[in-house]
Amino acid sequence: MKSKGLVTVLSGFSGAGKGTIMKHLLEEYPDTYFLSISATTRTPRPGEQNGREYFFMSEADFENMIENNDLLEYAKFNGNYYGTPKDYVEEMLDEGKNVLLEIEVQGALQVKKIYPEALLLFVTPPSAEELKNRLVGRQTDDPDVILSRLSIAYDESHLMDKYDYLIVNSEIEDAVEEVHTIINAERYRTARRTEMIEKMQNELLQYKKGDK
Amino acid sequence: MKSKGLVTVLSGFSGAGKGTIMKHLLEEYPDTYFLSISATTRTPRPGEQNGREYFFMSEADFENMIENNDLLEYAKFNGNYYGTPKDYVEEMLDEGKNVLLEIEVQGALQVKKIYPEALLLFVTPPSAEELKNRLVGRQTDDPDVILSRLSIAYDESHLMDKYDYLIVNSEIEDAVEEVHTIINAERYRTARRTEMIEKMQNELLQYKKGDK
Repeated sequence: MKSKGLVTVLSGFSGAGKGTIMKHLLEEYPDTYFLSISATTRTPRPGEQNGREYFFMSEADFENMIENNDLLEYAKFNGNYYGTPKDYVEEMLDEGKNVLLEIEVQGALQVKKIYPEALLLFVTPPSAEELKNRLVGRQTDDPDVILSRLSIAYDESHLMDKYDYLIVNSEIEDAVEEVHTIINAERYRTARRTEMIEKMQNELLQYKKGDK
Repeated sequence: MKSKGLVTVLSGFSGAGKGTIMKHLLEEYPDTYFLSISATTRTPRPGEQNGREYFFMSEADFENMIENNDLLEYAKFNGNYYGTPKDYVEEMLDEGKNVLLEIEVQGALQVKKIYPEALLLFVTPPSAEELKNRLVGRQTDDPDVILSRLSIAYDESHLMDKYDYLIVNSEIEDAVEEVHTIINAERYRTARRTEMIEKMQNELLQYKKGDK
């Protein structure tokens, strides 16, 4: 019997490097980790394929999924819906795969409500200064956008303690190994081994009763 | 600033191999793990040194420690007291050392009350049959003693879910690595990183307030 996979949610400040950590995990451990694919109502960009980057769908279909509770979490950004289809994640879990989700803070807490056994990891750079430097270094945002991201980061920082683990991303390779170590260790949690506990209790009972 | 060490308690069925796991951890990672030394009122055996195998003391001194709450846990076996001196463990923790304690189930739960942040690991063989085989293989116990140990194991199995992690000891080297992985991963728990969380909150607040 294959044991069920683990849901791991990665959140973190914009610029903390969670996307890079995800990418490394999928590349270095391709048989262990699988990425959940989001559904979205935004138009596919050139080169994007349905079922690879996203499940592309109409707003009506997406709202149908919301009504039917078919999404683990969803949010609207810039007029487009983004969400995590429950079915797809369930299928992977049933196959014993560890599913990685990269979701922002509110979505992560929605997932935890549906899967209390989900593992919530939060990624942060070692300091706010380093966070700012990374945002500046990306050269994609104007100074006022960067300040707004830092302000959002401040708000998000008050939800850090809702997460199970905190990854301080100083060196990417270290951070990747930390996440891998954590997911590995979590498999041994008693809460995830109730079947093994019951098995031992039943077997030991046979000896106590003198059946063996 | 050195971070405080972690208390890890190892319990498990008699014959599960927890002593062997301990020994391997101390040998393979001598800079990482440190063994707590118990206090006892039993007479030293030839070759045993005070402060190495045990802190040997009189019954009056031991009972004094009980009264002064100087013990993390204690129990009486065969007319002799055994217990874990709090001071000694505290000193090692303050030095940032990871302290390993090998204690039976009741003692482990006493420690968890005093240190809610202590990590509780339970070691079991893969099956009750294997447990029995190991007890028989040791050739130290009579059949009725073995049955009594299995009966105690049955009772203890109902406290397994009070533990944080369950180690199934099939291959000793795997079990040692599992314990090491778990202790490693636990360092990243948000509950153990409150200082880092507060640091980020304070630093990000500076940016939000426009001080930086």
